[in-house]
Amino acid sequence: MDPYPKPLRDLISQMKRLPGIGEKTATRLALFILADSSNLIEALADSLKKVRDQIRLCPQCFNLTDRPVCAICSDSSRDSTIICVVEEPSDVLSLESTHEYKGMYHVLHGLISPINGIGPEDIKLPELMGRLQRLPVKEIIVATNPSVEGEGTFHYLVKMMKDAGLNVRISRIASGIPMGSEIKYMDQVTLSSALRYRRNIK
Amino acid sequence: MDPYPKPLRDLISQMKRLPGIGEKTATRLALFILADSSNLIEALADSLKKVRDQIRLCPQCFNLTDRPVCAICSDSSRDSTIICVVEEPSDVLSLESTHEYKGMYHVLHGLISPINGIGPEDIKLPELMGRLQRLPVKEIIVATNPSVEGEGTFHYLVKMMKDAGLNVRISRIASGIPMGSEIKYMDQVTLSSALRYRRNIK
Repeated sequence: MDPYPKPLRDLISQMKRLPGIGEKTATRLALFILADSSNLIEALADSLKKVRDQIRLCPQCFNLTDRPVCAICSDSSRDSTIICVVEEPSDVLSLESTHEYKGMYHVLHGLISPINGIGPEDIKLPELMGRLQRLPVKEIIVATNPSVEGEGTFHYLVKMMKDAGLNVRISRIASGIPMGSEIKYMDQVTLSSALRYRRNIK
Repeated sequence: MDPYPKPLRDLISQMKRLPGIGEKTATRLALFILADSSNLIEALADSLKKVRDQIRLCPQCFNLTDRPVCAICSDSSRDSTIICVVEEPSDVLSLESTHEYKGMYHVLHGLISPINGIGPEDIKLPELMGRLQRLPVKEIIVATNPSVEGEGTFHYLVKMMKDAGLNVRISRIASGIPMGSEIKYMDQVTLSSALRYRRNIK
């Protein structure tokens, strides 16, 4: 017999659908939520509904937004001639946290992955080509992960732009040894990449 | 500038109120929830509301329930002359998962902790005494954690029952070396306890 009442069991089941949350964590979270004497349940349920109702994709860069055009695209102080191409909305957050980059973004919502049946038309690549043909863009920075899919999407994009005869500079974020880590702990692929793309110091 | 729209930021803030969930995990969970194309948002919000509306404490044992009297208290096949005293509803789940115990429970919802200003009246101890005086109980098994508060509450309960002149057997769950672990890794307090409470084998 299940010693927990059905509504609680249901909440635990729903929590378990979240990534990295197993039976034990889901139970702990559900009991914490239940024991909370403040407004946690209302606030959580309310936030969930608001996210569902108000969040949409920016029609220009496909980042998440609650406005007709996202905050970055509608910021006139940013350089609209540079577009940084990323895989997911969370990548925008990571890049923004550096405070280094002042251009625009384009979120692909996926990477080309033939093994998973994801082609160029399944991600926001045609939309990117549309943007490049429509607007005066000087540079594309491809900031996809240095994985098989990330590299593949990058190469496909380079070819696509060449075929379309677009005169736009295209660059790839640097791949190498992360700051603070040690050479002896690095894998061979990262070390090879770090050697191949070494910087020339005059 | 926050690159995430406000409803999403709000959801992340609410998620961060949960135990063991920091900024990064909250962001990952919120983005997962948002990207989910099934009914996850509705199901989660719905489960939260149902838990809030339907879960209450059993008036007899103070375990969580969605019925007038909880499933364990209303199960006539269980032995109502034994009461296992625990700190939290999750302890009931852990003990039930052993399928060893067929008696009743009493959930204290806390332990006596003078340092945190929690006295015997702040937990469900008076309710336990009421049960003992009202019903024919033969044994009380105190299954509080082997911590300062757990031991303190146990001793207080023993004294309380002696003062009330109750003729009820009282026992404490065994404390010792957990199954599968090794003596060399055990702390001194556990080892002392394991020695002190050694079993006599004829």
